[in-house]
Amino acid sequence: MKDHTPVSEIGERSLISRLSGMLNCGCDPEVRIGAGGDDCAVIDISEEEYMVITTDMLHRKTDFPVQMTPWQIGWMSAAVNLSDVASMGARPVGFLSAMGFSKETDISFVEDISKGMDDCARFCGTSVIGGDIDTHDELTITGTALGKVKKSELLTRKGAKVGDVVCVTGFAGSAGAALHAIENGIDIPDSLLDKLLTPIPRIMDGMALAHSGAVTCMMDTSDGLAMSLYDLADLNEVGFRIDEDALPIQPEVSQYITSDETTLTELALYTGGDFELLFTVSPDMLEAAQSVCYLNVIGVVVERELGTGITCRNGQNLTINRKGYLQLGD
Amino acid sequence: MKDHTPVSEIGERSLISRLSGMLNCGCDPEVRIGAGGDDCAVIDISEEEYMVITTDMLHRKTDFPVQMTPWQIGWMSAAVNLSDVASMGARPVGFLSAMGFSKETDISFVEDISKGMDDCARFCGTSVIGGDIDTHDELTITGTALGKVKKSELLTRKGAKVGDVVCVTGFAGSAGAALHAIENGIDIPDSLLDKLLTPIPRIMDGMALAHSGAVTCMMDTSDGLAMSLYDLADLNEVGFRIDEDALPIQPEVSQYITSDETTLTELALYTGGDFELLFTVSPDMLEAAQSVCYLNVIGVVVERELGTGITCRNGQNLTINRKGYLQLGD
Repeated sequence: MKDHTPVSEIGERSLISRLSGMLNCGCDPEVRIGAGGDDCAVIDISEEEYMVITTDMLHRKTDFPVQMTPWQIGWMSAAVNLSDVASMGARPVGFLSAMGFSKETDISFVEDISKGMDDCARFCGTSVIGGDIDTHDELTITGTALGKVKKSELLTRKGAKVGDVVCVTGFAGSAGAALHAIENGIDIPDSLLDKLLTPIPRIMDGMALAHSGAVTCMMDTSDGLAMSLYDLADLNEVGFRIDEDALPIQPEVSQYITSDETTLTELALYTGGDFELLFTVSPDMLEAAQSVCYLNVIGVVVERELGTGITCRNGQNLTINRKGYLQLGD
Repeated sequence: MKDHTPVSEIGERSLISRLSGMLNCGCDPEVRIGAGGDDCAVIDISEEEYMVITTDMLHRKTDFPVQMTPWQIGWMSAAVNLSDVASMGARPVGFLSAMGFSKETDISFVEDISKGMDDCARFCGTSVIGGDIDTHDELTITGTALGKVKKSELLTRKGAKVGDVVCVTGFAGSAGAALHAIENGIDIPDSLLDKLLTPIPRIMDGMALAHSGAVTCMMDTSDGLAMSLYDLADLNEVGFRIDEDALPIQPEVSQYITSDETTLTELALYTGGDFELLFTVSPDMLEAAQSVCYLNVIGVVVERELGTGITCRNGQNLTINRKGYLQLGD
């Protein structure tokens, strides 16, 4: 029977899971991880290596703040995809873009976008290897990124065990804080604005962590820390205990935006766009992970029944809400 | 200096070539063919094989006739990409889609699209292995298809030699004729309508031709026969002499749409959407090609100076115009 419910009523995560359930990739022996399973799909390509592939559609209204230059739009379109490659521990080996723009668009605008993509791809050790252009009322860019990884070093979302240490790279909430500043006319330094407008995919960190053998599971924080924790919690059937004091807040956020501790914690947990790596490490391997990557230990993996919560500065334990940056109005 | 000319003034082919020229993929040793070079990008993945990758953005207004069902929209989105994989002689190993639709869209509509994609992918021996969903005013679908091919069997657009025979699979102009029928309220049988609404990527033919070793260059005819001939002519620095009498016109086109020979020839040359394979074969290998694939010999490769023309039924030689189905109003 046809289901005429509007997609907005079931939300992004449920729709993805419903669509993935319809597909038949499970029967293909070359597909190691298929739709809905991880940050990237994974295909067997040789005895030693997997290819990882991801695609992401961005468009003017919801993904590119008006302050973004065309170069930054290009950079962002590549970065969101290359971040997914990073989260599998893979080395990028190509980026493709399909771009739709109106016929009246300046050539220079399109060239600047392409330059931004190429600069981001090159920064990540790869290049723009293909694409498509299309006419479209609203600027729309779909990127596709590819990576290679040794079979023994592939990192996935699955593998967290109770007792593992929870880590993130970089800061949490910086992109969300910068967006808040823009929307409220607050002047902020470039060091913060850049986190929103030109995020750095954590390629080197992802590869180094994969090589270290220390990581039990990994994903990126593009939809926000809370949402990512819940994704890992559901998949691994575990809970998380996060330490509020350990959340890595960029000093500029408390300096320019707010010094209110509750607001800082909410920015760190519930805003997206950071593109940092969130991962778990077996305690005896923490030193190995620390020796290859600047990381912040923010909590531990706990039993499923204990849920996903935060231990506040006053010692109180609160539940973390299942919310973050999602399409379709979750 | 910034170029503020609108993109519509330089056209799709020139813009692609200009953007490709800016990119740096040439310096990456793993990239065998990069942006703008062929139907797919080509990456080295092992001693024996290449991976081919292509991406294509389609959207409601210009790519999906209103008669299309959601299942057909899904099929088409996969088919256009898988056809590019076919034209490299490769075996598909995965399809990804990024879909943008409004929040009010029925779940069933999105499910039917996904089903159409999956059915097309499975028909081609692969599956939908990943994707993204996004909110968007206008229905927009970007597909990405991957394929593997033995290094010795990779077919590219480059390789045509003077004296080679020019061949196509299937019919020319069927999709264009069907679109004309729809736009003019002419009733046509499903055997013709299907050519427009559910094109079949020529995967088996592409792979068989690649394996035969008979083909000197190949591409698909998605932008129309004339445009594809010019693409091959420019790249290979040759001309083409096409035989009007040899153009493979589907009987239903002359039966239901027009029996006027000039119009039939124009449909065959200048309308897109057929997704057939256009390829050249060295004359001594023609039999080898014919033994693995139903093909139509439509002409020969000639010296560059002779241009790209057609020998009409009355013996007259006419130049084929450089036009077809293109975005950006070429």
